[in-house]
Amino acid sequence: MTTIYQHGTLAQLVARQMSGTITVAEMLEHGDTGIGTFEGLNGEAIFLNGEAYQADSTGKVHHITDKQTTLPFASIHFDQPEASQKLPFKKIKYSNLTQNLKDEQLFNVFSALKLHGEFAHVHVRIVTKQEKPYPSLLQVAEQQPEFKADNITGTLVGYYAPKVFGGPTAAGWHLHFLSDDLTFAGHVLDFEATDVDGTLEVFDNFLQHLPINNADFRSMNQDIAGLDKAIEASEGGKN
Amino acid sequence: MTTIYQHGTLAQLVARQMSGTITVAEMLEHGDTGIGTFEGLNGEAIFLNGEAYQADSTGKVHHITDKQTTLPFASIHFDQPEASQKLPFKKIKYSNLTQNLKDEQLFNVFSALKLHGEFAHVHVRIVTKQEKPYPSLLQVAEQQPEFKADNITGTLVGYYAPKVFGGPTAAGWHLHFLSDDLTFAGHVLDFEATDVDGTLEVFDNFLQHLPINNADFRSMNQDIAGLDKAIEASEGGKN
Repeated sequence: MTTIYQHGTLAQLVARQMSGTITVAEMLEHGDTGIGTFEGLNGEAIFLNGEAYQADSTGKVHHITDKQTTLPFASIHFDQPEASQKLPFKKIKYSNLTQNLKDEQLFNVFSALKLHGEFAHVHVRIVTKQEKPYPSLLQVAEQQPEFKADNITGTLVGYYAPKVFGGPTAAGWHLHFLSDDLTFAGHVLDFEATDVDGTLEVFDNFLQHLPINNADFRSMNQDIAGLDKAIEASEGGKN
Repeated sequence: MTTIYQHGTLAQLVARQMSGTITVAEMLEHGDTGIGTFEGLNGEAIFLNGEAYQADSTGKVHHITDKQTTLPFASIHFDQPEASQKLPFKKIKYSNLTQNLKDEQLFNVFSALKLHGEFAHVHVRIVTKQEKPYPSLLQVAEQQPEFKADNITGTLVGYYAPKVFGGPTAAGWHLHFLSDDLTFAGHVLDFEATDVDGTLEVFDNFLQHLPINNADFRSMNQDIAGLDKAIEASEGGKN
């Protein structure tokens, strides 16, 4: 039995609910590996080996040692190499990732991808910290810094989610990157690598935790009609 | 911490995946109160006090004592009256249920409703058992027997789910009914009652379990574009 734990929803960010409603410490009770964003969309979160890292919108990477730091939306799982499939990729890039994994039949299940090695190219974006009253994720997505690096050694980590869960989470791939030397990180827009290896873990359980005691979350107006378009514009990954 | 556990998705029924992939015994490990359907859409399931009941499409109600009976889609939780809000309703009907509960701010959270008493009127439908190759839920919905009862004592039980989870589950209300004398049950299309009481339980966690070892589920083609319309036609409850 393997579980991906998610706090909050992607849809709530579109509905301007960006207050931190879970701490890093609480997230780490449910896993050691994952991704997310911090309160007010203050950069991209990466959980690796039970530690939390933040890529801020200037491109700097911080090791988050204050475990009371909060997040509005994040996903995490326990990395279990023994329960995962080994993935040595000879040559891989984002645009053919799904095709390369087609035999794994990932379309209808949640899975985690973790790749480590030297990447020929990584292209990321990093969300910019917002202040209250928070805008919609869609507005934030219109202006977010992008960064690129070549021949960089690090870890690509994230999830595949079935299309039917688009809204609660990002459908398709949602991947972050963290370089070994902590100089480069972010939400992956594109990547290319030769000879990286890693693992693919398929989950039985998707455990969705909601901030039910947060008044703004309880009263938010979730516009379903505009949701798909907003998510596509702001988070659209490769399917 | 309260959890609603769901096996399978409503969307998979639209995609013709109706094989039983969890047993009654396994469901009951995750709760004592809930709803669902049996393999091949063989009637409506009601879990109450840790027991499973089936309303078949002739209108008969069966106490399911074979715990190896399987279901493709079902939701369950542990009834916790002490963690629930008491709900004495003086006069209630399906069409004003949401309005009556508007102070509870249910729109963005999962919750369970359980009402017991004498109902002035209950109108149900019961899905009809299908054979392989299974049709879509949409086709099944076009011809399903309906039954009505007046002045009947029983339990109304089911869930409210946020609209953004429409697809994985039924958005809005999804309620079943079981009479105390086990003569009448089904998926609730309408009801009206005076002086019933019950409880409302709000969940922190939505635990989605998927049948990842089922080959048909792994390879199913989930048509997202037509999903909302199909679910509205087949399961459309009150929002």
